[in-house]
Amino acid sequence: MAKLTSRDQDYSKWYNELVVDADLAQHSDVKGCMVIKPYGFAIWERMKEVLDAKFKETGHVNAYFPLLIPKSYLSREAAHVEGFAKECAVVTHYRLKNDPDGAGVVVDPDAKLEEELIIRPTSETIIWKTYKNWIQSYRDLPLLVNQWANVVRWEMRTRLFLRTTEFLWQEGHTAHATKDEAVAEAEQMLRVYAEFAEGTLAMPVIQGVKTASERFAGALNTYCIEALMQDGKALQAGTSHFLGQNFARAFDVTFATKDGGKEHVWATSWGVSTRLMGALIMTHSDDLGLVLPPELAPIQAVIVPIHKGGEGEAVVMERCNALCDELRAAGIRVKLDDDDTRRSGWKFAQYELQGVPVRLAIGPRDAAGGTVELARRDTREKSLVPFEGIAAHITALLSEIQSQLLSASRQRLTDNITEVDTWDEFTAALDRGGFVSAHWDGTDETEEWIKQKTKATIRCIPFDGPGTPSPVAPGACVKTGAPSERRVLFARAY
Amino acid sequence: MAKLTSRDQDYSKWYNELVVDADLAQHSDVKGCMVIKPYGFAIWERMKEVLDAKFKETGHVNAYFPLLIPKSYLSREAAHVEGFAKECAVVTHYRLKNDPDGAGVVVDPDAKLEEELIIRPTSETIIWKTYKNWIQSYRDLPLLVNQWANVVRWEMRTRLFLRTTEFLWQEGHTAHATKDEAVAEAEQMLRVYAEFAEGTLAMPVIQGVKTASERFAGALNTYCIEALMQDGKALQAGTSHFLGQNFARAFDVTFATKDGGKEHVWATSWGVSTRLMGALIMTHSDDLGLVLPPELAPIQAVIVPIHKGGEGEAVVMERCNALCDELRAAGIRVKLDDDDTRRSGWKFAQYELQGVPVRLAIGPRDAAGGTVELARRDTREKSLVPFEGIAAHITALLSEIQSQLLSASRQRLTDNITEVDTWDEFTAALDRGGFVSAHWDGTDETEEWIKQKTKATIRCIPFDGPGTPSPVAPGACVKTGAPSERRVLFARAY
Repeated sequence: MAKLTSRDQDYSKWYNELVVDADLAQHSDVKGCMVIKPYGFAIWERMKEVLDAKFKETGHVNAYFPLLIPKSYLSREAAHVEGFAKECAVVTHYRLKNDPDGAGVVVDPDAKLEEELIIRPTSETIIWKTYKNWIQSYRDLPLLVNQWANVVRWEMRTRLFLRTTEFLWQEGHTAHATKDEAVAEAEQMLRVYAEFAEGTLAMPVIQGVKTASERFAGALNTYCIEALMQDGKALQAGTSHFLGQNFARAFDVTFATKDGGKEHVWATSWGVSTRLMGALIMTHSDDLGLVLPPELAPIQAVIVPIHKGGEGEAVVMERCNALCDELRAAGIRVKLDDDDTRRSGWKFAQYELQGVPVRLAIGPRDAAGGTVELARRDTREKSLVPFEGIAAHITALLSEIQSQLLSASRQRLTDNITEVDTWDEFTAALDRGGFVSAHWDGTDETEEWIKQKTKATIRCIPFDGPGTPSPVAPGACVKTGAPSERRVLFARAY
Repeated sequence: MAKLTSRDQDYSKWYNELVVDADLAQHSDVKGCMVIKPYGFAIWERMKEVLDAKFKETGHVNAYFPLLIPKSYLSREAAHVEGFAKECAVVTHYRLKNDPDGAGVVVDPDAKLEEELIIRPTSETIIWKTYKNWIQSYRDLPLLVNQWANVVRWEMRTRLFLRTTEFLWQEGHTAHATKDEAVAEAEQMLRVYAEFAEGTLAMPVIQGVKTASERFAGALNTYCIEALMQDGKALQAGTSHFLGQNFARAFDVTFATKDGGKEHVWATSWGVSTRLMGALIMTHSDDLGLVLPPELAPIQAVIVPIHKGGEGEAVVMERCNALCDELRAAGIRVKLDDDDTRRSGWKFAQYELQGVPVRLAIGPRDAAGGTVELARRDTREKSLVPFEGIAAHITALLSEIQSQLLSASRQRLTDNITEVDTWDEFTAALDRGGFVSAHWDGTDETEEWIKQKTKATIRCIPFDGPGTPSPVAPGACVKTGAPSERRVLFARAY
């Protein structure tokens, strides 16, 4: 196994190598489309499972809408078409035929569609077209629907998980009788995302709203969670949109109110994607490979038997099997690796690379003495623990690892938010990396100018309250000196 | 709520109405593509959950491969391209632009792909292209991978769930070192499907193999499970293919054997789809709507409070809430419907239509007397049961309903397999419906002639052994009189 490039040497190369070497994903021959390998997919499945339970707890149900959207739907909402029409995969034909001049197949010109179909880049249009038939009265509201799906947005520069032409995601699409309910829903789902990021991914996030220029195409307000990667770049980890009545108007979705009136429905949409896999990797991992929070780890503890065959083998294997049974009975996701074709050194390196939180090794001396050699992936600490009571020990340890990963990344986040008041401080802070908390005059022009000049964008206007990076207070724009109501967070971002 | 067309009157119309009225699915504006509504999707989610657990128990892992396949991949396997190229959605462009002559958007002619991409109709080609890099040595085998995905096959005549342009499915793709292992895998997965159909869907199936003309495009052998619908038509509910070395050869996938040789890998693939939803509906449902086996029911028991407000309401609601808590604690999927805007008669009809296995009603007299009115959806029997011990009673009842649904449909299947020996018997039996067990001379010509003449196909050559419709014994072809080794099953089919 070749060593990974170190993070210091080349962070981006380290990331790409890790994703492939740890068996998470790889590029396919189709430009920009990835293959999610079984180990990577098992982590995504855990994310789905936890999120899906949270969506259901908050009253949502799943459904499925068509992959293909008639081209004309995209044009129905003016801002939406501007945002999404540029990057669409377009289906124009529905049949191939044998190439009359050769061996392969060619597009059959007789099978041209009357109206082209777009592979969904997001599903607001087809869903609101459908909601028109689902919603007549206030009794039909709220409608709280989520969809797990693949989407396609044509991308010129792609990176595994972070930016791919096809990606997997969930998209919630809700309909409400009042503006207040819709806003409350959009805010609630942002909290769900934040709790998931912190509780499951052990990844602290800053919650806030996007500026007008960074809003979702068709939204009145976009809420977001922003995380900080190890290299000092920000990553948008989830968004929740208050769509107002834009899509209801575009698709003519009205409802009969309790008092006999007729109004357009209020909407939200919200989503997270396989991009979270990239965020997870760049939050915890190190030069030896992936570091996984136990909550997400497909294998939480791996058992490696150490023996040289012969009589020792039976004793060691008996212990290993007993340990495996005990941990499994305690609800721990455990794997016993008894593959004889690999040496234990190879296995140790492999499980380090794949981020298994706890590694347990048992040799003849351990088997005789009633001990197990335990190695933590996060701290790389080793200890000898008694077999007696080991399931409780490991359960507690997994929970400790989970919270230590969160506190370590929270510390990193806190340490990397810099408040600045001058342009020089601003650019210097940006170059050090992390979030820069600065005053901004609130204009698109200044925002765009700063973006062009520094490649930094306003990641969000953070919510005020406990945990906010900078309490709301007026000041002067770091660029123009014009008055500013409050600081916003800038960063270079993925 | 309008009554459904009865099955006797028009089976096909009954089916279409039921699917829409019971909130399972509906047509979308995109030709042949359906919307799976939340209630229908919840049933599909249960199917997925049960199947996925079975796949994992048998050692399979999930992964995800690209939606889009380069056109040239399809041509790599000769039989495969014949079978699938005819019905593909073809992506030719990757961008839209504002219509220079109007308000909408048009395909940007400058964004034409060099090689067209096909939306996957099935994933053998892209997966075997990927496996080439995953498989080097016998150590990498077997490779046991499954994918849950959407696929698109252009269909001219579509029906909700049964035949749609886009559908959801799982496709297993495995790679093995030997022919025997691959055959054993294909057979194992057919058994998994059969157990799922009988144990979860309460739908008995006949297991067997397809004739050469009905094989999957690219397979050496296709195993199948065939079910019988209420109207006497057969439905192919799942297939498992032994692919030999065809795809390994097409994509040059070889492995180093233990003794230093080099061989092509052996393959299987197997899948079931949202078509199972159609099979489920047409196995158990009646003129009042859906009948669901408890194993699959998103709501296993619904509680309907009966009161006229006032003092009675509090007493009734207290009982209902206690009942709901108790059933939930016993692991029953229960819903308390306390919606005040609907009358109880409306609710009764609605839950009948949606196939909820057990309905519980509590009125003031029940609340006072410690009883519950229980109605079974399958038999429509009503009984008064004591509150005391009700969770155990309902748990037992759900399991009884599950097994009674299976035995009823098994009886129907058995009653509708007719052994015939002459052409007149054959056509008469076909017209009565069900499976017709008849001798066939084994030629494609006779098979095709019968298909053209009667619209019946050979559904399968059933496995011999316990439960086979007809033990293996020689005879004379029902059409040509030529010698036949054994009977096969004919039917008209969905």
